[in-house]
Amino acid sequence: MATMKPKRTRVIALLTDFGDEDYFVGSVKGVILSVNPRACLVDISHRIPAFDIDAAGFVLAAACPYFPPETIFLAVVDPGVGSKRKILLVETSCHFFIAPDNGLLTLALEREKPRRIREISNPRFFLDPPSQTFEARDKMAPVAAWLSLGRSVNVFGPALEGYEKRPCPEPEVKDGEVRGRVLYADKYGNLITNIPVSLLQPLSKASSPRQIRGGWKLLAGKKEIRGYRETYSAAEKGEVFFLCGSLGLVEIAVREGSAREKTGLAPGAPIRIVRRV
Amino acid sequence: MATMKPKRTRVIALLTDFGDEDYFVGSVKGVILSVNPRACLVDISHRIPAFDIDAAGFVLAAACPYFPPETIFLAVVDPGVGSKRKILLVETSCHFFIAPDNGLLTLALEREKPRRIREISNPRFFLDPPSQTFEARDKMAPVAAWLSLGRSVNVFGPALEGYEKRPCPEPEVKDGEVRGRVLYADKYGNLITNIPVSLLQPLSKASSPRQIRGGWKLLAGKKEIRGYRETYSAAEKGEVFFLCGSLGLVEIAVREGSAREKTGLAPGAPIRIVRRV
Amino acid sequence: MATMKPKRTRVIALLTDFGDEDYFVGSVKGVILSVNPRACLVDISHRIPAFDIDAAGFVLAAACPYFPPETIFLAVVDPGVGSKRKILLVETSCHFFIAPDNGLLTLALEREKPRRIREISNPRFFLDPPSQTFEARDKMAPVAAWLSLGRSVNVFGPALEGYEKRPCPEPEVKDGEVRGRVLYADKYGNLITNIPVSLLQPLSKASSPRQIRGGWKLLAGKKEIRGYRETYSAAEKGEVFFLCGSLGLVEIAVREGSAREKTGLAPGAPIRIVRRV
Repeated sequence: MATMKPKRTRVIALLTDFGDEDYFVGSVKGVILSVNPRACLVDISHRIPAFDIDAAGFVLAAACPYFPPETIFLAVVDPGVGSKRKILLVETSCHFFIAPDNGLLTLALEREKPRRIREISNPRFFLDPPSQTFEARDKMAPVAAWLSLGRSVNVFGPALEGYEKRPCPEPEVKDGEVRGRVLYADKYGNLITNIPVSLLQPLSKASSPRQIRGGWKLLAGKKEIRGYRETYSAAEKGEVFFLCGSLGLVEIAVREGSAREKTGLAPGAPIRIVRRV
Repeated sequence: MATMKPKRTRVIALLTDFGDEDYFVGSVKGVILSVNPRACLVDISHRIPAFDIDAAGFVLAAACPYFPPETIFLAVVDPGVGSKRKILLVETSCHFFIAPDNGLLTLALEREKPRRIREISNPRFFLDPPSQTFEARDKMAPVAAWLSLGRSVNVFGPALEGYEKRPCPEPEVKDGEVRGRVLYADKYGNLITNIPVSLLQPLSKASSPRQIRGGWKLLAGKKEIRGYRETYSAAEKGEVFFLCGSLGLVEIAVREGSAREKTGLAPGAPIRIVRRV
Repeated sequence: MATMKPKRTRVIALLTDFGDEDYFVGSVKGVILSVNPRACLVDISHRIPAFDIDAAGFVLAAACPYFPPETIFLAVVDPGVGSKRKILLVETSCHFFIAPDNGLLTLALEREKPRRIREISNPRFFLDPPSQTFEARDKMAPVAAWLSLGRSVNVFGPALEGYEKRPCPEPEVKDGEVRGRVLYADKYGNLITNIPVSLLQPLSKASSPRQIRGGWKLLAGKKEIRGYRETYSAAEKGEVFFLCGSLGLVEIAVREGSAREKTGLAPGAPIRIVRRV
């Protein structure tokens, strides 16, 4: 294999909760480069909160559509490392995903339907012997590297029928209002919901998302957020408002401030968007 | 363009306040690699304090002289994202800069004078449709990628006469003393001033900066800092002193400690350097 | 040299306490890319606690075995920058190390014995003039870059007989127990000791490390930790236990929690592993 010399190798994008102060990420990269010295490595993040599978799933789903075809995503938040939980290799129409089978891929695979799902279990590709506590380095990293060199997903283990999914309630439109929840708080404190702005459009008879102004208010518990803005900078400083975020989802924000702090809302909080009277 | 296959692509160096715990940086890199799969990506930092244009401007100016010719700096701290503020593309004698037109480039362009300034506005190079809230991903990243493949700056939008500048007072020599201010506090707590050590040289009649010892003291408010040292390790532990930092600027430091904490000084604080009596 | 065009350049892996919020790391990378535009740069970490030579030494030793042959490790935690302390270039049977001569390489060179040790002192390879306060950028980075292009270690300075070592007590087996100490606390709060699990094996007459169960307990001060587990997920949540970590060393852990917080133990703490009665 080392003599294949492909003109281009697949991108390997890394997403973990390993932090960037330890030897974890470096070891994973070292293993990959030992197999494929031309590997193109990209860090999405290594600072997902420890053990937070939902946050990792969100960040992965938010970033992956922007990567080149055939990118290999190595995504590891893995409280069950070393247990009986499987290690997944999923091929979709455009990308590959390697992750523990713990629901991390739920959101990403909502958008990109799996074509082939394999269990990573062929020890021929593992470090020898693999540890029980660092399978990202000893099993997933070498598989990602061999995959980046053009290997077929079939060689790494048997086919699987399905994969673990996290509960992931869809937003619903009911009685002329839209009900959803907060999915994620980003580092600025913006609260990203699971409500696509496109859901508001037919209800408001507007011809484009940008025309949805003034007609709606957002309710979260006893809080009422009235202002819809097109951009952060269109709001007053300190004002809590909502807008169409860069993922096409309704987002609660404060200009140059933290909506998370200002509203006290956190991921999981239910919200409703209703017509203003 | 994809068939051009240049032997070497221009380096793209990234500097943002996006943090490294979210999907922002990964998305930007994914977009760049989708256009130019051979892109050479370098992170300067993504941990500039949120919305701190001055800190970003300082870090950019401090790092950019050390990068190869034709490096493309993509620098984004952008509280005005989505507003009428322009997006700049600047070509200097040695580098390219892409940034919101909000003053971020002030210090960098003091050193490298602009040769061509363009507004990035040609939608042909943008993601379709670009969001209002993440122009780094949707507009700046693809432009950086096309530029790295060798495109001329002229194709991305019309020429501009100038660009936004931040107030940036020069140090002055007056009455035998030098007056300046603290520009930046680095992660060790060193306080970097806007006073080039070379300004002290003619005043002290020393033949090299290393010979400036003992003849000066630094005054900041009511604080008096007497010791000039050549290196951090030449000071006593706990001593507050000043030295010629790695950027050629006077720096206030504490050996293995934080001058910021020990002196209470912060960026913006005025200082004077005067002869010891 | 610029026309050598090697088909593959050596990996350069970076480990520092420079943080990732400043211009330090970017400057180092810029210098390297200016010398070798094809350099393959990998970050191990830049978030080693400031001035913590022992932590850097541990992380380096933990990561380096996983990197490709001929990788160049540029490791800088350097409270003595600018002083008389030397800058080392060490070639082992498989890797190169560049670091201040302050003991940082102690652990790494326990595993990979030095073949050639040089002092980096040839100004021909330095930025001109090098600063007194940022030798990583001005001296070590260009040397790493030239080395990545295939230069011999001999050109960078004279041979040295030895290098500075940090105290690094070995674990000892005595009276049927194993005595060691905590080496490092990782970001999850796992406490990694200097006791190889293989030391417990002959004592317990088990045929593999995985068979060491139940026969031992770990004592730290007045604390007694009874449970040995094979993986994190085999423990109860909240339980303090010990296991064979991914480096082959005994590790004290709490499932989805911090053993450091729960036990109050820190690097340096002595521990004993004794038979359960």
